Amino acid sequence: MSDNLQGTELLQFLQEASVAELRAALNDIHPADILDALEDYKGDAIAFLAKLPNEILADIIEEAEEEDKSGIFDLFPLDQKKEIISEMASDELADLLVTIDPDEANDLIDSLDAEDAQDVKDLMQYDPETAGGIMATEFMTVKDNMTVRETLEYLQKYGEDAETLGYLYVLDEHEVLKGVVSLRDIVVHKFNEAIAPLIKGNVISVKPELDQEEVASIFQKYGFTSMPVVDDEDRMLGIITADDVLDVVVDESTEDFEKMAAIAHSDGEYLETGVFELARKRIFWLLFLMISATFTSVIIQNYESALASIVILAAFIPMLMDTGGNAGSQSATLIIRGMALGEIAIKDYFLVIFKEIRVSLIVGVVLAVVNFLRIWLFNNDILLAMTVSLSLLFTVVLAKTVGCTLPIVARKFRIDPAIMAAPIITTIVDVLSLLVYFKLAVTFYKII
Amino acid sequence: MSDNLQGTELLQFLQEASVAELRAALNDIHPADILDALEDYKGDAIAFLAKLPNEILADIIEEAEEEDKSGIFDLFPLDQKKEIISEMASDELADLLVTIDPDEANDLIDSLDAEDAQDVKDLMQYDPETAGGIMATEFMTVKDNMTVRETLEYLQKYGEDAETLGYLYVLDEHEVLKGVVSLRDIVVHKFNEAIAPLIKGNVISVKPELDQEEVASIFQKYGFTSMPVVDDEDRMLGIITADDVLDVVVDESTEDFEKMAAIAHSDGEYLETGVFELARKRIFWLLFLMISATFTSVIIQNYESALASIVILAAFIPMLMDTGGNAGSQSATLIIRGMALGEIAIKDYFLVIFKEIRVSLIVGVVLAVVNFLRIWLFNNDILLAMTVSLSLLFTVVLAKTVGCTLPIVARKFRIDPAIMAAPIITTIVDVLSLLVYFKLAVTFYKII
Repeated sequence: MSDNLQGTELLQFLQEASVAELRAALNDIHPADILDALEDYKGDAIAFLAKLPNEILADIIEEAEEEDKSGIFDLFPLDQKKEIISEMASDELADLLVTIDPDEANDLIDSLDAEDAQDVKDLMQYDPETAGGIMATEFMTVKDNMTVRETLEYLQKYGEDAETLGYLYVLDEHEVLKGVVSLRDIVVHKFNEAIAPLIKGNVISVKPELDQEEVASIFQKYGFTSMPVVDDEDRMLGIITADDVLDVVVDESTEDFEKMAAIAHSDGEYLETGVFELARKRIFWLLFLMISATFTSVIIQNYESALASIVILAAFIPMLMDTGGNAGSQSATLIIRGMALGEIAIKDYFLVIFKEIRVSLIVGVVLAVVNFLRIWLFNNDILLAMTVSLSLLFTVVLAKTVGCTLPIVARKFRIDPAIMAAPIITTIVDVLSLLVYFKLAVTFYKII
Repeated sequence: MSDNLQGTELLQFLQEASVAELRAALNDIHPADILDALEDYKGDAIAFLAKLPNEILADIIEEAEEEDKSGIFDLFPLDQKKEIISEMASDELADLLVTIDPDEANDLIDSLDAEDAQDVKDLMQYDPETAGGIMATEFMTVKDNMTVRETLEYLQKYGEDAETLGYLYVLDEHEVLKGVVSLRDIVVHKFNEAIAPLIKGNVISVKPELDQEEVASIFQKYGFTSMPVVDDEDRMLGIITADDVLDVVVDESTEDFEKMAAIAHSDGEYLETGVFELARKRIFWLLFLMISATFTSVIIQNYESALASIVILAAFIPMLMDTGGNAGSQSATLIIRGMALGEIAIKDYFLVIFKEIRVSLIVGVVLAVVNFLRIWLFNNDILLAMTVSLSLLFTVVLAKTVGCTLPIVARKFRIDPAIMAAPIITTIVDVLSLLVYFKLAVTFYKII
């Protein structure tokens, strides 16, 4: 990227260039870089945005982070907004319009031509995290009786506004999707050849209500660069492109990371989020988990007399709890991720639990033996070593059983399995491991 | 996907169809679906694979999971292997050849024509997790003095073998990358127009040694479907396509999830991995963390006399430790993910820690107040309530400080920040919180 105009250099250029210079250079500057420069710019952004043509402004808004789009858009007067939206892709426009004042959104929609207006209104109805929410309506259709030359001439006439020309779709008279042909296949064949032999039937498509995460796994499975969306009668509604899917995959993973660490989801980047907002996203789960930990206090208070006579028992509570928590979250993480990637389904539960019990027995025995030797050598107390190590074995087995069960149960009840990660698993396993520990201690030491 | 041939239906078709029927249908069947059917097939896979043409077999091997590729490839005799590899993309072939017997790999490379052989040998030198490791060498170049028609005729002649025709590259006589033009822009312009005005200079490219995770963020930033790889003199080496990047993003996230849950990385899917392999991937970290937890035992044993006189102190150890662990891993997760997405850099450390300290004070005070009221009301013991709540506040601040510091320190020392997640943070915070707790208790209760 040696001769790329980026960062402060680009910023300086954007500020100082005349409108003519700017427009001449824009062909070689990516809107994402203008957006980066804009972020670093402390002054009045509108001053250099005003020089840019509406087409580039539309690109910049499309490239912006979800939470910044409406802020940039609102810099412009209503008349210019109308110009800008006429340059935007339908999916991007629909996403933008649901975030602004509904009256203004209606005004803007009315300024579009009737067909585009209807497309955008339709798109605004879909849940943004479904196939319908990420599809665009500007797909390109061709007829199966065209030649390569006719197809190319058709694209020259009508191709300009399509979201992608990578694939061209063949529909019947009822708009039902019948086939697909890749532009790549078209252009490597001679002008006078028919395109019919290049068309593939049996097109893989999705319904608009499909969750975007499942859309992403279909893209990944087939290595697609775009995929059609069809209604229940197989009529083509729109097209999803790979760049949108890449965003979906990154966002969904980020959401899972947050959920698995007991943080409420936040749209903004960390460094741009305020302190109170960050605190608010974390406090609920911390409070909930802290109050849940009351159970552990109750158990320990119940066994206060046991603990008073054998104070050394307290020394192994943290180790026992941590190991249980870690063992449980290993299982939970593998199952949660496996379900997110579509590798594990609810029906696999018995396979999973059978596997986890065997794994936990192997892991638990190894840990228990190491732990037994350690306590025996350093504390020289076989009874203690036995109590702690046996508790450890039980804890690991319980932890892995709970850890693999809860995410699958959550999915069964249509709750996001990612909630059932380390924090909750740890809290539950703490209670179980303390119960086992004190029960065994009381039995072994024959106290009370 | 209503009329899609998939799963058992496809399997049945593949087994029963004659070679002629099969070849006629293959145009409409995606290799990824054949691969799925193959996975469910219990019998002799070679029986129905043998009916497939080498071109489809090459596609199937390209689509297979990394760990399955060489297994499928090895089903075929050497002669057929040579046919199959001649149909494979250079990047896929290089990835396959590094996993098989080196002598056989050399034999196979020698069967390719000289230029392809050299390309594959070059590709095999790159670290598989870099831009060089995921690029293909089959990119398409054009001359800047061509017209649209000449470009299309050129593609008709030479386009067949390219990895993608989405973008065509303009190189100078020294192979230096000078510009790029999208096929989309070509096909929407009239046959007799020159392509020169459509060519964009200032091409965004990467070097072959760039980490694949950074390649993925560049793709995401610009919404690319492909990107060129150039050497230090800007000579074009290859091309990276969006489908490879999607795999990278999914794999890198999975690896982070595993690391953050203290599991060694495993290539295979959960359900296909053996019990001993699963146990082996988990035991190291569990042992390491269990032995690290020895510090907590030592601290508690040091304060045994304090604990013996005020046994109730033990009852709040789990709550204190869990809250510290949760608070710390919230911070660690946000920082680790922020760094993975390129939103947080090492230079941001002071911004981050200043932010985390303020967040932890807000969160810590809220938790401490709730906790104070709870203990005061239920245990009716102000001294205890004060000791526990003040320890809790210290613990939360310490936890968030450690949680945001360790991932950044790790990155500074070129260790993967994802290692510094919940399990390690919890173990460290446990020790700190116990120290604070007992110090405060001893001071407040004036014992010893």
